[in-house]
Amino acid sequence: MNKKDKYNIAVVGATGAVGRRIIDVLEERGFPVANLSLLASARSVGETLLFRGQKIGVKELRKDSFEEVDIALFSAGSTISKQYAPIAVESNCVVIDNSSEWRMIKGVPLIVPEVNSSALGEKWEIIANPNCSTIQMVVALKPIHDNYRIRRVVVSTYQSVSGSGQKAIEELEQQSRDVLDGKSTRSNVYPHQIAFNCLPHIDSFLENGYTKEEIKMVNETHKILEDNTIEVSPTAVRVPVFYSHSEALNIETELPMRADKIKELLSRSPGISVVDNLKNNEYPQAVNACGKGDVLIGRIRGDLVRRNAINLWIVSDNLLKGAAYNAVQIAELLLKRLTFPLSILDK
Amino acid sequence: MNKKDKYNIAVVGATGAVGRRIIDVLEERGFPVANLSLLASARSVGETLLFRGQKIGVKELRKDSFEEVDIALFSAGSTISKQYAPIAVESNCVVIDNSSEWRMIKGVPLIVPEVNSSALGEKWEIIANPNCSTIQMVVALKPIHDNYRIRRVVVSTYQSVSGSGQKAIEELEQQSRDVLDGKSTRSNVYPHQIAFNCLPHIDSFLENGYTKEEIKMVNETHKILEDNTIEVSPTAVRVPVFYSHSEALNIETELPMRADKIKELLSRSPGISVVDNLKNNEYPQAVNACGKGDVLIGRIRGDLVRRNAINLWIVSDNLLKGAAYNAVQIAELLLKRLTFPLSILDK
Repeated sequence: MNKKDKYNIAVVGATGAVGRRIIDVLEERGFPVANLSLLASARSVGETLLFRGQKIGVKELRKDSFEEVDIALFSAGSTISKQYAPIAVESNCVVIDNSSEWRMIKGVPLIVPEVNSSALGEKWEIIANPNCSTIQMVVALKPIHDNYRIRRVVVSTYQSVSGSGQKAIEELEQQSRDVLDGKSTRSNVYPHQIAFNCLPHIDSFLENGYTKEEIKMVNETHKILEDNTIEVSPTAVRVPVFYSHSEALNIETELPMRADKIKELLSRSPGISVVDNLKNNEYPQAVNACGKGDVLIGRIRGDLVRRNAINLWIVSDNLLKGAAYNAVQIAELLLKRLTFPLSILDK
Repeated sequence: MNKKDKYNIAVVGATGAVGRRIIDVLEERGFPVANLSLLASARSVGETLLFRGQKIGVKELRKDSFEEVDIALFSAGSTISKQYAPIAVESNCVVIDNSSEWRMIKGVPLIVPEVNSSALGEKWEIIANPNCSTIQMVVALKPIHDNYRIRRVVVSTYQSVSGSGQKAIEELEQQSRDVLDGKSTRSNVYPHQIAFNCLPHIDSFLENGYTKEEIKMVNETHKILEDNTIEVSPTAVRVPVFYSHSEALNIETELPMRADKIKELLSRSPGISVVDNLKNNEYPQAVNACGKGDVLIGRIRGDLVRRNAINLWIVSDNLLKGAAYNAVQIAELLLKRLTFPLSILDK
């Protein structure tokens, strides 16, 4: 890909919860889009979506969809990414993939721009977007790791249903109405009622008793922070919240920390807004994080015993920083790295 | 108090969420009640509550309310407990107090019957019922501490609104309807919207950045397990759930643990139901814990790195085991310890 004024962009899974946000973010950030292809499965063909005031028709994803496309942002699940990302790459298109399919593959950069933009490398084929619950965690961990060396993280998540897509949002809505009306509930997306309940179950269970979601938080953190020695002990929980994930972290470091110093450090670190004024009952909340690109951090307090441990409360919009916004940030990072082709410079 | 066939019981705060549960539990467990006094503030006088099919009128709490009463179960907040518990004791009435007022006072037993019934002592005046989030945690910790010696607990809670009383239940209900109907919400009980949101804020904030609720979990655990060296690092969070609290625990011990052994140990420990069958998506859930006296434990899995650490998911009905049921259990414990007066035995 050479430097140009504008780029042809494709969004794969354009009609999904994340796909729609990607289109919004491209518009809001004034991304230099020449042509925007909205790709989805055959059953979405006929739908139109708005981009910069223009209606764009959704086209069926096909093998030839990536001809002339510079960057394709995939958000249509692992099966589609597995099949079509290599096809896109064949067409000289750079893929930014939001699924879990390529994240842990050696040689595939797993990027959170504020954290490890240097891992992007020089040859771009597939670039993976991490899991939502990992992204907001590593944005907080990075400055602490750089300054105090993190040894261990115990994390409990409070994840919203939008992470499971549009149908889960509708399920929480319908079940909530049913409970309030004294009716029985029906569960399709989740194995049990999510309305007014907590489910310690995100993605499927593995042999070791952890969920895939929990193991993603371990493995992806290791890859992004380039340190497999960091112990991560996760519990991932779905809560009856529509948008934004919250996380409670207990972090142990090699060097001792002071809460006020950590607060100061996080305040001046990229992609973070510290919301921590207890006198005014100010702390990060899911409903306030919606629509924000930053990761909100509060309840910053030293462990009651260990001088090298600290507790944090971290909230972020899982569809934005956890998905669409991070993906577009990666695309922006690519553009910054591009140079005009030598043929032009020679003129 | 001498052994009798039946006892005069008073419930202070009878019309509150916990008070009503106490009356239910006394009935369900066939507690040997002679006379039941339902006491509350003047504005509840005139209300009647059902006990064993009989309507009982609520009376105003007064200084002379405890004459002839053997056991008074208090659940009307710290101010009432502070003022009236000593008055009840003066009348030779044993007080079982559900407020935080007396819990940490030296000489006042803080009792979870399955855990530390031996701490009850011989002279009974005020006996304190621990905080709801502490009770369910220590029921799980006790057998592990006895067998493996607990060094550290990192706990994140997912606490239901019923812990804040009836008005909070109504606030979650009203706010949920308002959000679903696209209306703006109003908050009175909580400083922010609780519907479809998480608030890392239970009880008030202290100078050290922790909430009172969090510090209760530390101090009460130390007192109940009689071991101040156990490190407890808590984050207490209110979630939009009506009844039952959930907790994610990471526990470190002196001796190495195996998940299957811990599962077996917890299965045969008192007051615990292990719910942990991942193949059938079975794990503890708030909506399933309601109405149950047991503490439900699941997601039992060894830490990914440390052989002396384990993760648990613990759920219990905060109004029952967390309050009313534990209080009645304490009363039952008293009766078991009673002996007939020597004057009778001499005959």
